[in-house]
Amino acid sequence: MIVVLKQNAQQESVKELLEWIEEQNIKINVIRGDQKTVLALVGDTARVDTDQIYSRGCVESISRIQEPYKEANRKFHPDDTIIKVGTEQIGGGTLKVVAGPCSVESEEQVTEIAKLVKASGATFLRGGAFKPRTSPYAFQGLHATGLTYLKKAREVTGLPIVSEIMSIDHLDLFSDVDVIQVGARNMQNFELLKELGHCDKPILLKRGLANTIEEFLMSAEYVMAGGNRNVILCERGVRTFETMTRNTLDLSAVPLLKHLTHLPVMVDPSHATGIPYLVEPLSLAAVACGADAIMIEVHNDPKHALCDGAQALTPDQFDHTMKAIRRQAAFQNLVL
Amino acid sequence: MIVVLKQNAQQESVKELLEWIEEQNIKINVIRGDQKTVLALVGDTARVDTDQIYSRGCVESISRIQEPYKEANRKFHPDDTIIKVGTEQIGGGTLKVVAGPCSVESEEQVTEIAKLVKASGATFLRGGAFKPRTSPYAFQGLHATGLTYLKKAREVTGLPIVSEIMSIDHLDLFSDVDVIQVGARNMQNFELLKELGHCDKPILLKRGLANTIEEFLMSAEYVMAGGNRNVILCERGVRTFETMTRNTLDLSAVPLLKHLTHLPVMVDPSHATGIPYLVEPLSLAAVACGADAIMIEVHNDPKHALCDGAQALTPDQFDHTMKAIRRQAAFQNLVL
Amino acid sequence: MIVVLKQNAQQESVKELLEWIEEQNIKINVIRGDQKTVLALVGDTARVDTDQIYSRGCVESISRIQEPYKEANRKFHPDDTIIKVGTEQIGGGTLKVVAGPCSVESEEQVTEIAKLVKASGATFLRGGAFKPRTSPYAFQGLHATGLTYLKKAREVTGLPIVSEIMSIDHLDLFSDVDVIQVGARNMQNFELLKELGHCDKPILLKRGLANTIEEFLMSAEYVMAGGNRNVILCERGVRTFETMTRNTLDLSAVPLLKHLTHLPVMVDPSHATGIPYLVEPLSLAAVACGADAIMIEVHNDPKHALCDGAQALTPDQFDHTMKAIRRQAAFQNLVL
Amino acid sequence: MIVVLKQNAQQESVKELLEWIEEQNIKINVIRGDQKTVLALVGDTARVDTDQIYSRGCVESISRIQEPYKEANRKFHPDDTIIKVGTEQIGGGTLKVVAGPCSVESEEQVTEIAKLVKASGATFLRGGAFKPRTSPYAFQGLHATGLTYLKKAREVTGLPIVSEIMSIDHLDLFSDVDVIQVGARNMQNFELLKELGHCDKPILLKRGLANTIEEFLMSAEYVMAGGNRNVILCERGVRTFETMTRNTLDLSAVPLLKHLTHLPVMVDPSHATGIPYLVEPLSLAAVACGADAIMIEVHNDPKHALCDGAQALTPDQFDHTMKAIRRQAAFQNLVL
Repeated sequence: MIVVLKQNAQQESVKELLEWIEEQNIKINVIRGDQKTVLALVGDTARVDTDQIYSRGCVESISRIQEPYKEANRKFHPDDTIIKVGTEQIGGGTLKVVAGPCSVESEEQVTEIAKLVKASGATFLRGGAFKPRTSPYAFQGLHATGLTYLKKAREVTGLPIVSEIMSIDHLDLFSDVDVIQVGARNMQNFELLKELGHCDKPILLKRGLANTIEEFLMSAEYVMAGGNRNVILCERGVRTFETMTRNTLDLSAVPLLKHLTHLPVMVDPSHATGIPYLVEPLSLAAVACGADAIMIEVHNDPKHALCDGAQALTPDQFDHTMKAIRRQAAFQNLVL
Repeated sequence: MIVVLKQNAQQESVKELLEWIEEQNIKINVIRGDQKTVLALVGDTARVDTDQIYSRGCVESISRIQEPYKEANRKFHPDDTIIKVGTEQIGGGTLKVVAGPCSVESEEQVTEIAKLVKASGATFLRGGAFKPRTSPYAFQGLHATGLTYLKKAREVTGLPIVSEIMSIDHLDLFSDVDVIQVGARNMQNFELLKELGHCDKPILLKRGLANTIEEFLMSAEYVMAGGNRNVILCERGVRTFETMTRNTLDLSAVPLLKHLTHLPVMVDPSHATGIPYLVEPLSLAAVACGADAIMIEVHNDPKHALCDGAQALTPDQFDHTMKAIRRQAAFQNLVL
Repeated sequence: MIVVLKQNAQQESVKELLEWIEEQNIKINVIRGDQKTVLALVGDTARVDTDQIYSRGCVESISRIQEPYKEANRKFHPDDTIIKVGTEQIGGGTLKVVAGPCSVESEEQVTEIAKLVKASGATFLRGGAFKPRTSPYAFQGLHATGLTYLKKAREVTGLPIVSEIMSIDHLDLFSDVDVIQVGARNMQNFELLKELGHCDKPILLKRGLANTIEEFLMSAEYVMAGGNRNVILCERGVRTFETMTRNTLDLSAVPLLKHLTHLPVMVDPSHATGIPYLVEPLSLAAVACGADAIMIEVHNDPKHALCDGAQALTPDQFDHTMKAIRRQAAFQNLVL
Repeated sequence: MIVVLKQNAQQESVKELLEWIEEQNIKINVIRGDQKTVLALVGDTARVDTDQIYSRGCVESISRIQEPYKEANRKFHPDDTIIKVGTEQIGGGTLKVVAGPCSVESEEQVTEIAKLVKASGATFLRGGAFKPRTSPYAFQGLHATGLTYLKKAREVTGLPIVSEIMSIDHLDLFSDVDVIQVGARNMQNFELLKELGHCDKPILLKRGLANTIEEFLMSAEYVMAGGNRNVILCERGVRTFETMTRNTLDLSAVPLLKHLTHLPVMVDPSHATGIPYLVEPLSLAAVACGADAIMIEVHNDPKHALCDGAQALTPDQFDHTMKAIRRQAAFQNLVL
């Protein structure tokens, strides 16, 4: 950790800072430049709260050399994490496809889509029962009933189910859901993350709309610090000035995350772009650069879709895309 | 609302769309261009869920002409909302200053700061008991104890208190807090917003780090749709590519919000910039362009601050800033 | 084109606007809503200058339905443009790799790298003679001498050369360069673009750091409007809040551009990310989602690199990456 | 300057790096941490080209402690720069207002506007003769003729004139223009900046749409390194995800720049927001936080404006805004 002192820093304030740092069992190297003095701190600085240093009147800036995440850090856990979901797994040289409607609308709808996506080769069924909607007047999901329909679709098809949680209060309802999704808007809902750290379910954590890779890993760290090491990271686009796509899919996040962490990485091109014809090429790109899983939105009856239908593929389009994904996976020797 | 149809849209799909729209009591004008056909919808389109239109296979894009927010919309509520907090008020030709530490650390600390900021002219005391921290290993606040200390400081000084809530589960703890703050990371925690819509406390809603003005107003709408019309909007910086300041303070949001909504607008230059010497000039700028309130972070003992001390003013700096704010307020005939 | 009128628009101002629009041979449909009036314009609106409409006191907002670019638009030119460079070509079912040093430093350096990248399978040689550097004190390139060295390397290896132009004044120096590159910082240097529209060389146009896809295509349109239809578009990352990578590579731009325009699309993962280990996976991703060409920075002697060496691959790394690219290209039946 | 070495850095590569650094007369402090080794460099590191360090295989990251700009740096030039323009000045406790049309359209138009804005209290006349337009089909300005009209308006009113240059080739045409503007899209047109460094005219440098404050100062440094120290910096909004305003005006840039540099700072709320009713409140905010000058777009005949009229004030609106600016300036004891 590098601490730059202010040019006009008071001697006493600096002395107190040095004492405080040494109390944390951190070794200090003082480097005096022409204009500024720099402290180079050596030791287990990942646990040091930079705010406690920043708050000293004498400090100008701080930069970390060590990453602030430990459980999620590949340096300390070199082997890929493989997440078991029933007889399925995510990570470890496999490629999985999570497909389904944005929102569960009826038992028939979700069962029908589940059968179709399974026939095309999807390995997980997704479906929202609690929907984060920008407008309070928009359809917010079928809640408990939606989860019941999703479970019925699992019964019929055998596909494990993935659904988004929006509040600690709903945790009981998710006890029989296979993978619990934390949406982009809740990536830094730290109270929710802490609670999920105490359960044993796989957590699918989506990257926030304007969150850095480091913040993304720190949110995974929240879950892992609670004891739950089953975290799947999902890149789903970030906000930029571009208006043609809904968000800007950051595929560089895939190889970057695979380098920094041992956790599996999923990509969601449907929500990232909001444009159906971009889903197939970007799914292939995601696989080509190392993604462990792809999430694709599929609906069977677009004219009755109650939310976010714009980016969903029809079952036929999904089937076409799955065939292309299978070929790419086979070419890369990935088990799908 | 303008709906652009795809060039190769199927007749039947278009027909079904037209029928569905008419069922919503919306009048349709069909304009056929050389390349594309456009539907111009007339009626109460604010309640129309655009996703239900988007999901049709035949739709290329949609743009709203009417704003999707009603309760927060100045068009339907031309008069400024004035929010009463005990004997204090926010909005309506007054200027209020909310000051205090990032985090409540001890009864002595918060009481001492409360006395100092009151002496300088602050009208509200802020202090965090639940802290949203990027790292699970960082200090997370004193929780219930922190709120108790804050109330003691209110007892001593008479200043109404403002504190951030992070979970629905903590709502009971906030029953005696004067103003409940929703932080930037929870601006789209819709379950929390809905719950706050059912209480009668003033809600201080901070703009999310990457949220548009319209999304900001839609989050206010969530609270208001539940029946709680006491919402204060707070601009606190958005994420950009700039790295010198923590965030980029968007002061254009102030006159823009004053134009679009009747709700009072606060500005927080401390968190927006993270740099103490920017707090005074940006506070003055905020007042000059119409802000109803300013939030400033103050600590008395930076060397023991447990969080976010970097941007806090010392009591002396705060006193200097308050004098400048008072002069600007007097110049603008604002009651402070 | 959709024009929304202000609620309080003056009759006379609206009347004048309607007359002006009709003079442009555009048909107007007037739709009166409860709150606002909307004009839907039908005809060849691509040539209409929206600013001339905006400037009327009565106009609130304008949105285009038709794209404002014509020459670059796939709708009017459905077939892929293939760009001939000597015996080489870019576009049309081929995959090309442009490789070389950021900056030409000596005849030996560039010739040595040229031989190495050719041996690995590169099809074009890149090298900067004029370097856009943020600091006036940094190395700015060898200028004319650099171009001479580059031509020598072409003589030895037969590889066509690509180099960046920074000023109209240098155009003569580029008369014997095979492909003229316009860098990201000059994407909206319209005077330069106009001038390049009058030459017959292929222009490699890099996307600006914060430019939308539409602006990117409009800059291509500047060159094409002058008569030069040989434009190659290059995605090289955009600015976001992320700090771990230099920029955020927007791979969704590849299939989006292939849909909107007939021009060939290149991807530069070296400059986009600034991190060597991301170059190979993102090159594969770019190919998988439809890129026609990849640009990769390679140096042979990093310790003497005078600029931007951070993201360059060593010849060994490049050879490894080329092998992977070849396999992916063969899998997709692309001629490399 | 802090250089972090890679964990697996080769001994020899590190040795060569250390030797190279010492050749630059920089002292090196080596700090060995548990995981990584850090070099703290002491000396005149502002001239060190970080790319030459980065390019070494052994380097992971570099961060500067000293600013890379010298001429523009307030540390080395503590006193405010005052820029003389005829009998006028910018900077040094004054407040100046630059007003006029986006584009010069006729002698009558610009003379008429010049008279009106002068009557309201403007101190400089602006008007574009060369217009950077996104579309090649849009009006590009009257070029030399436009400058002639502008000079006529100066003759009539005595107001010094400001106009934008877009190419080195037009430099002769600007020999009699009082202040030469470099637009946002040319902020990093380094060849143009170098050329302007050799003339003796005041340069009004606008911040690029996605450029950091440091890059902005480095572009000023380009001009100043050539010998021309008369640079005025203009904040005019940066690109964000917000779509309601054209750009996001970054007013924190004003006190930040005043702290970092001795150069005068202007603010352009017209182009930043694109919304007339935001111009007055943001002008006042800009003055309140320390701006030396304001630029406001004014047209007299909006229905014939040939470009960018949307954000322009009418002469009446401008007069209202000038009165408010005058009051704020008087309150701050600024000479207007």
